[in-house]
Amino acid sequence: MTKNVLILPGDGIGPEITAEAVKVLNKLVETDGLDIAMEEDLVGGAAYDVHGVPLADETMQKAHDADAVLLGAVGGYKWESLDISVRPEKGLLRLRKEMELFANLRPAMLFPQLASASTLKPEIVAGLDILIVRELTGGIYFGQPRGIRTLENGERQGYNTYVYSESEVKRIAHVAFQAAMKRGKKLTSVDKANVLEVTEMWREIIDEIAPEYPEVEVNHMYVDNAAMQLVLNPKQFDVMVTGNMFGDILSDEASMLTGSIGMLASASLDKNNKGMYEPSHGSAPDIAGQNKANPLATIMSAAMMLRYTLGREDLAVKIEDAISKVLDQGLRTGDIMEDGMTQVTCSEMGDAVVAAL
Amino acid sequence: MTKNVLILPGDGIGPEITAEAVKVLNKLVETDGLDIAMEEDLVGGAAYDVHGVPLADETMQKAHDADAVLLGAVGGYKWESLDISVRPEKGLLRLRKEMELFANLRPAMLFPQLASASTLKPEIVAGLDILIVRELTGGIYFGQPRGIRTLENGERQGYNTYVYSESEVKRIAHVAFQAAMKRGKKLTSVDKANVLEVTEMWREIIDEIAPEYPEVEVNHMYVDNAAMQLVLNPKQFDVMVTGNMFGDILSDEASMLTGSIGMLASASLDKNNKGMYEPSHGSAPDIAGQNKANPLATIMSAAMMLRYTLGREDLAVKIEDAISKVLDQGLRTGDIMEDGMTQVTCSEMGDAVVAAL
Ligand SMILES: CC(C)[C@H](C(=O)O)[C@@H](O)C(=O)O
Ligand SMILES: CC(C)[C@H](C(=O)O)[C@@H](O)C(=O)O
Repeated sequence: MTKNVLILPGDGIGPEITAEAVKVLNKLVETDGLDIAMEEDLVGGAAYDVHGVPLADETMQKAHDADAVLLGAVGGYKWESLDISVRPEKGLLRLRKEMELFANLRPAMLFPQLASASTLKPEIVAGLDILIVRELTGGIYFGQPRGIRTLENGERQGYNTYVYSESEVKRIAHVAFQAAMKRGKKLTSVDKANVLEVTEMWREIIDEIAPEYPEVEVNHMYVDNAAMQLVLNPKQFDVMVTGNMFGDILSDEASMLTGSIGMLASASLDKNNKGMYEPSHGSAPDIAGQNKANPLATIMSAAMMLRYTLGREDLAVKIEDAISKVLDQGLRTGDIMEDGMTQVTCSEMGDAVVAAL
Repeated sequence: MTKNVLILPGDGIGPEITAEAVKVLNKLVETDGLDIAMEEDLVGGAAYDVHGVPLADETMQKAHDADAVLLGAVGGYKWESLDISVRPEKGLLRLRKEMELFANLRPAMLFPQLASASTLKPEIVAGLDILIVRELTGGIYFGQPRGIRTLENGERQGYNTYVYSESEVKRIAHVAFQAAMKRGKKLTSVDKANVLEVTEMWREIIDEIAPEYPEVEVNHMYVDNAAMQLVLNPKQFDVMVTGNMFGDILSDEASMLTGSIGMLASASLDKNNKGMYEPSHGSAPDIAGQNKANPLATIMSAAMMLRYTLGREDLAVKIEDAISKVLDQGLRTGDIMEDGMTQVTCSEMGDAVVAAL
């Protein structure tokens, strides 16, 4: 049965990088019997410019109807002074929330071919392979009440609410424990349980669930310490699990450690493994439209989509092998360029992956 | 007139490291006419064990009466399962709040003698010198309402409130702009203005104040991006200003980049430059009582105290020069030990600084 994939290129470099992923998927349709139908629509600033909202209801409906969504990136200088309620990012947040994509999986791994691209010393990052499991539909990004009000004395006050219910913590904890079982059986839960009650509860719940996974070694770490330990000794981590905001910060930090942020994919899954897939990097408005961006993270995201949602592990591996080959050939976009390598454009990189399939 | 300094050693390595700083201060009393009277008291777990609270009212009063407070560190495994309201950390938070120490200054700098102690490549961190200005008495660490409640359906829900008023943001912004004026005239304000309203207001206020400091180049950065940029290119930063929670995370990350976290001091100041001084590192319960800790961050904190609160810039410089000499002599505690250097204990390091004064 044909599976439907909604392509949401978004803003900045989004259109360029998703175009390359679509190229790769189209090739697999031609040569490997991949049975998908792709449709494109607007999200983020691109949607705002046309519809006045960062995600039209019609697009939301298409996302519900699709089997999977592949997204580029949202946001950019152009929309930074808009009211927060219609910023490009809200389109992404709405997709995550309404599709109930509570489990965000962000691998941070070092590609052996890019070992020296990291700003960290090679011995610190060689072999780095962390999976960050970030809760994606709760926490302070969605908490109510929120807003900016005027106090009696006339001054403004801004406020947001960091809130988690037990069931929200439990379901993401299970995803993380299960991921740990399939990997190194080590789970680090990150909180600020010494100061924030919501994360004190988070920690309690992790401890309550832990006995269901006796093989997994669990430890707790305060978020400030986690931010340090990632720099000091990132290889101590296997799977990390944390809330929406801490996950946002730590997963970006962890990706950057690898020196390969242009290479890192992410999956956001609901309880049935229906998902949205996007590169871990952002919309990079400074290089948008210049055919310079690295499409590999988006192509990797397409591979994750084949693996988790479309049931084609074989084709996921095929894409990953092709990327590895292309890196072995010495092809590099600007972000990962090093002496002795061949610099290519975004579309040349996509073509090279297609050729290597 | 004699100035009063309250010494609060706290937990873990706190007592060992403050003892060395006291040694250094006593030496300056003897030889350089430093006119201070020091008194010691309990804070954190040490206070809890005696008084059942992490800061006795009497100690709070002494802190109010003192001209400056020098603190070691609080917290440890022993107290981790206590109720959040009496954890060691609450003692520290109460001191900050009641003394109105809203301005936390955390320098993250690389000591040239320790250039290779960083996990980052030398060219990335050589010459690194960032000042993080963290708001310390507001934001989510103090916001109300907060707690853990039971919902109607029987499940628990944890919640905290991230809140800032205009006046709180303004006063910390002025501290940051003024610090930038005395340094490289570059200020990066960190927020999550694309998602959190409270930080949207933060960003607006920074922009409103900026025209008062026309020489300072201001930019805004999302916290997730800041966590990445610190790894990718930390030398782009001069002064960073942010709220309590983001400041906690980013200042720890930034300190760790330098490879010298055992060397980094911090000052927490009220509007009259009365202050509390503490090392940037924590209580390190794993090495407590072993005479292994690095006392230099605490000794540096004493130097900051002489500079900001006690009006003895000359003696601050004298201490800093002594530390530099000791590093030149090749003396190192375990945390910064490298081949070819001489490993010393905590107390030996303190003695060496005293000798070098
Ligand atoms: C664009 C933004 C809303 C988003 C987030 O903060 O979740 C992004 O930073 C991410 O991590 O996917
Ligand atoms: C001990 C803890 C309450 C404290 C904080 O989070 O503020 C510490 O991490 C710090 O940064 O000074």
